[in-house]
Amino acid sequence: MTDTTQFALNLHKTHKGKITIALRDTPTKETLAAYYTPGVGAVSSYVAEHPETLPEYTWTNNLVAVISDGSAVLGLGNIGPEGAMPVMEGKAMLFKHFANIDSVPIVLNVHTPDEIVATVKAIAPSFGAINLEDIAAPACFEIEERLKAELNIPLMHDDQHATAVVVLAGLINAMKVVGKQLSDCRIVLIGAGAAGVATGKLLHLYASPTIIAVDSKGAIGSHRTDLTPEKVTLASFNPTSATTLKEALANADIVIGISRPAMLNADDIRSMASNPIVFALSNPVPEIMPEEAQAAGAAVMATGRSDFPNQVNNALVFPGIFRGALDHHVKQITDEHKIKAAEVLASLVGTPTADAIIPSLFDERIVPAIAAVIT
Amino acid sequence: MTDTTQFALNLHKTHKGKITIALRDTPTKETLAAYYTPGVGAVSSYVAEHPETLPEYTWTNNLVAVISDGSAVLGLGNIGPEGAMPVMEGKAMLFKHFANIDSVPIVLNVHTPDEIVATVKAIAPSFGAINLEDIAAPACFEIEERLKAELNIPLMHDDQHATAVVVLAGLINAMKVVGKQLSDCRIVLIGAGAAGVATGKLLHLYASPTIIAVDSKGAIGSHRTDLTPEKVTLASFNPTSATTLKEALANADIVIGISRPAMLNADDIRSMASNPIVFALSNPVPEIMPEEAQAAGAAVMATGRSDFPNQVNNALVFPGIFRGALDHHVKQITDEHKIKAAEVLASLVGTPTADAIIPSLFDERIVPAIAAVIT
Repeated sequence: MTDTTQFALNLHKTHKGKITIALRDTPTKETLAAYYTPGVGAVSSYVAEHPETLPEYTWTNNLVAVISDGSAVLGLGNIGPEGAMPVMEGKAMLFKHFANIDSVPIVLNVHTPDEIVATVKAIAPSFGAINLEDIAAPACFEIEERLKAELNIPLMHDDQHATAVVVLAGLINAMKVVGKQLSDCRIVLIGAGAAGVATGKLLHLYASPTIIAVDSKGAIGSHRTDLTPEKVTLASFNPTSATTLKEALANADIVIGISRPAMLNADDIRSMASNPIVFALSNPVPEIMPEEAQAAGAAVMATGRSDFPNQVNNALVFPGIFRGALDHHVKQITDEHKIKAAEVLASLVGTPTADAIIPSLFDERIVPAIAAVIT
Repeated sequence: MTDTTQFALNLHKTHKGKITIALRDTPTKETLAAYYTPGVGAVSSYVAEHPETLPEYTWTNNLVAVISDGSAVLGLGNIGPEGAMPVMEGKAMLFKHFANIDSVPIVLNVHTPDEIVATVKAIAPSFGAINLEDIAAPACFEIEERLKAELNIPLMHDDQHATAVVVLAGLINAMKVVGKQLSDCRIVLIGAGAAGVATGKLLHLYASPTIIAVDSKGAIGSHRTDLTPEKVTLASFNPTSATTLKEALANADIVIGISRPAMLNADDIRSMASNPIVFALSNPVPEIMPEEAQAAGAAVMATGRSDFPNQVNNALVFPGIFRGALDHHVKQITDEHKIKAAEVLASLVGTPTADAIIPSLFDERIVPAIAAVIT
């Protein structure tokens, strides 16, 4: 067991978890009779008659459910609800720490889209918004679409969309560093799971660059006959005839790894166009280590880690998006919201440089800036 | 709108609800890397391999879900999940205030036993225990039985069992006041819903008194042909041939109202045996007001209200039962637990008198005393 592992286990065990319930007001005998029976009866009657006032009288105005079935947790894969719980409670900690949002981790013992949709719909009146987390592709796409259509509170699958937003924000500034236009770029997107699909879609919507997505079977293009609907969409962004990762990388301006450790080597980077941009976002071990990529010519290098410059991490995005959605009573988080969030996040870096394309996670301007554009 | 109503509405609106999330430890850059990615990965891996350790590493060790479909809320009836939410959040406030238990109100948008069972099972890994609340009879009986059989965490339908426990505790001390034995008593139980059925069963188990339950169609006995399975059980506790409430009350030692306001009058009390005991627990308006019952000869009078002596309220019971279940890793809350809880609650009153058969809700000995017997 490494020191880091032991430190994390000890820290969790010492504090018996990361979140707790606190009271907004310490009750007295008098107020308890109003907060609970008999007084609460009047509040319940009023809310039952005017259900749209629920957030005015309960904690749902500031409450996000963090919901996962544990099928795609971090780089650990399908580890089930119990294994997922520490991560979801961690997400609740981030929501509180960065955005003062109350959130409750809900891990699910069901895994089919029908079961997950039914469960989330059943408990939805308890919450002000829903953050889906670490649900495997392709189930995550169907689940999110169905729930967005059926619920009247904002819902976002974080792995997809917060990742897409933070990648776009990073690329907006990386373009300034290398003096290129995103619309002119050839982008290789390694990984076509939840984050890969959403990132490809958002980059296409924003600038229509050439996007060659790559999955475990090679480049995703019109030659493939084994594609899910989402991968068919990715294929439509790829006008090239590349069939392998190597062919895709040849002369590419940008490579975005959302896949697995050590997928890339120095020769891969050298095969790219001038001033290549490398986002190696696999966590905790990136697709290529920064020193190796930079030695091979990477002009801008980003990872998902806090111990290197340019931490492109979805934690930069989801607290602000939900803060804005709750504060502004937004019912749907749209593509327009995501693009605005990416632009405002990028704008917080005054003069982007190779080592500063994205703000620090601890930059207190981030949450209010993103929240302000989610209207 | 009464002043009380306005006060309750204002109080809820001012504080925007009653509970909030707090952090067990304020994260630093270093600890955040352990509480969230990358460090949390080791915790998740460990818990996935050893799911029984979940409570050691997450907040589930101290966490109760308060779950309702809003089908039988206070005296308000079937007001739906939104209307139920202020009451469930109030229950969470009581859990925290009286027993330092974290709890999360979950209101359900589904109402059949199959749907409720499926939903609770799906979210159960998120919690350390489950408190079912304000679910209408007879669905509540099937839901509780099925979930108790299928879950490996403690679960209790509060309306049934906490009510039964507090009534038994009150009667244990009331017997001392009037110098009778519970086993010799004739008890009339008005109301055969969730609380009535559970109270009848627990009193029968404890002392086998004569119990004549009464529902909207009259006394529940062998003459009835319209009974649900639970009411058939109640009928088996009734050896009499009474068919009406009046007949049931004649010469009764105890009447327990868990029904609706003003069901009883002075003549009803006068028709009872000497030193009658009257528990009029309908809230906020009891089956008979204390002054009227006492003028008609009631020797011991209890209500569910805090503004009269002898507040027989389930809030005396559920915080301690769940505190004990969580602390002692109890997997099932049994009849033996309930009887022990009633006995220890009664024992906290040193010398019972007509105006002191039950401790005050604010007596800080209650929760630890009950928790100590839930082992």
